[in-house]
Amino acid sequence: MNEFDLIARLTRSLPTDERTVVGAGDDCAVLDLGLPDRWLLFKTDAVVEGVHFDKTAPLEKIGHKALGRCLSDVAAMAGTPTHALITLALPGNFDADAVERVYVGMKLLAARHDVAIVGGETTTNPERMLISVCVLGTVLKGKSPLRSGALAGDAIFVTGELGGSAAGKHFDFEPRLAEARWLADRFTIHAMMDISDGLAGDLPHLLKASRVGAELLSEAIPVSRAAGLAARAESSARSPLLAALADGEDFELLFTVAGGDVVPLLDAWKKQFTGLRLSCIGRITAEPRLTIRDKKGVQPLAVHGYVHFQKS
Amino acid sequence: MNEFDLIARLTRSLPTDERTVVGAGDDCAVLDLGLPDRWLLFKTDAVVEGVHFDKTAPLEKIGHKALGRCLSDVAAMAGTPTHALITLALPGNFDADAVERVYVGMKLLAARHDVAIVGGETTTNPERMLISVCVLGTVLKGKSPLRSGALAGDAIFVTGELGGSAAGKHFDFEPRLAEARWLADRFTIHAMMDISDGLAGDLPHLLKASRVGAELLSEAIPVSRAAGLAARAESSARSPLLAALADGEDFELLFTVAGGDVVPLLDAWKKQFTGLRLSCIGRITAEPRLTIRDKKGVQPLAVHGYVHFQKS
Repeated sequence: MNEFDLIARLTRSLPTDERTVVGAGDDCAVLDLGLPDRWLLFKTDAVVEGVHFDKTAPLEKIGHKALGRCLSDVAAMAGTPTHALITLALPGNFDADAVERVYVGMKLLAARHDVAIVGGETTTNPERMLISVCVLGTVLKGKSPLRSGALAGDAIFVTGELGGSAAGKHFDFEPRLAEARWLADRFTIHAMMDISDGLAGDLPHLLKASRVGAELLSEAIPVSRAAGLAARAESSARSPLLAALADGEDFELLFTVAGGDVVPLLDAWKKQFTGLRLSCIGRITAEPRLTIRDKKGVQPLAVHGYVHFQKS
Repeated sequence: MNEFDLIARLTRSLPTDERTVVGAGDDCAVLDLGLPDRWLLFKTDAVVEGVHFDKTAPLEKIGHKALGRCLSDVAAMAGTPTHALITLALPGNFDADAVERVYVGMKLLAARHDVAIVGGETTTNPERMLISVCVLGTVLKGKSPLRSGALAGDAIFVTGELGGSAAGKHFDFEPRLAEARWLADRFTIHAMMDISDGLAGDLPHLLKASRVGAELLSEAIPVSRAAGLAARAESSARSPLLAALADGEDFELLFTVAGGDVVPLLDAWKKQFTGLRLSCIGRITAEPRLTIRDKKGVQPLAVHGYVHFQKS
């Protein structure tokens, strides 16, 4: 049983209520607690030593990553994060200076995005550090793009560049909060999520939630320089395109808009965000299949399909 | 460096904002996000295999405990929990049936207190299960008793009975949510917290936050039957009184009211909560010392003072 099967099983018949606009299954839970114009966003995420970072990682960057992952999920809802709680599970022999440096990384990122860290707790995890972060945020009512809103004919976009994140970006990424709010303010975003498991791993979640398919254009996928360098440095490395599809931890936005919005969106984006690419990488199809088109034609890209893709 | 020193160090100069009514240091963070009549309560807590439960523990009870600890903190603020997120960190070889039973324990408790579980995540912790829970709640503005409000002359109360929790109560406790709201509705509660580290471990936090001291009455401390049984079963066990002071995981309410409220409170409580003891265990003093009075006289009860107390 994999993680997604387990989650599906656990989230069956969860207690819910009429204040829950969106429960388990999107980037954040969306709650209506009675604010006149806003919904609350509620999200938790954890990083674990040996899984999401190793012992040699710069400590401030571990903190940055732990909080940044949650903020990226708030960005995916076009929200504004407001408050965070930090749970540190530490081996008994923790070094207080080291732990404080982890906190420095979180504090700097929090301050940059006006997020107040309002507490948390420390507990014991004898073998390794684990950091669990919980974030609260707000979003204008009805202005939070869900995973389930994609429509056949939509154009699919990604921000930034994909692949090669392990070379550094997985520690240095900046959550696309301002970009997401700008998008939701000015355009009708049909569906949005952030890319944490790789385009080929995450897009299927959006397609499934929306009951649609997609055709990607191989040449349009924005491959990062880091993915290219990794491929050149080692012959056994993934090809740059495969890295862009499958590496994960890109923390970029993946979203869809109506076909008619493509040109105005690209024009407006270029004026607003000169330093950040925006790429139209394909379109949503009515038929619930995920395919990729390259010079050789159209071929299926299965869920977690990089393995399939790699072999084809 | 112990946990409290580390927390003090980490929470220095945390980014905060004007929407934070109470940040780190109380049972929950208290946030004003613009609800007309209510503040939000925000809390996270974790339980770890081998620390808070062992491998032989009934799985539903592990889930109950994980969520219940957070709900007890919401109770300590006289709040109403509304939503929860669950993070499960699991060894790679997890048994999905076992994990589902943990969830059953959480779902039952959540349903009983109208808490919606709106998501969470699963991640890897190779050596042991760790469950981190984040809870959101609400409280009427200005109606949340803090740790910092105790005044010299106040009477000190505890609900229920203390000590011997390891015999079962640490898995079976019911968060005192209804009791705390009833108290805050009908009386002016000066200060309140829940007892998780034992009366002798927790009361000093309340005293320090309020800049006061306390004198406890040895004979008034409600010692649980379980603490008595444990002392009789094993000659090396803590005395029942020491168990009541130091065992911890009682998850009862500890609070103070003005001296004039003592009799009306006890009268009203008896009519309302026939099955649950309420005990007046001492009084708040202006001098910032914690002492305990018994037949032999008054002696100091140091912070984490059960060791001191045991020897005296």
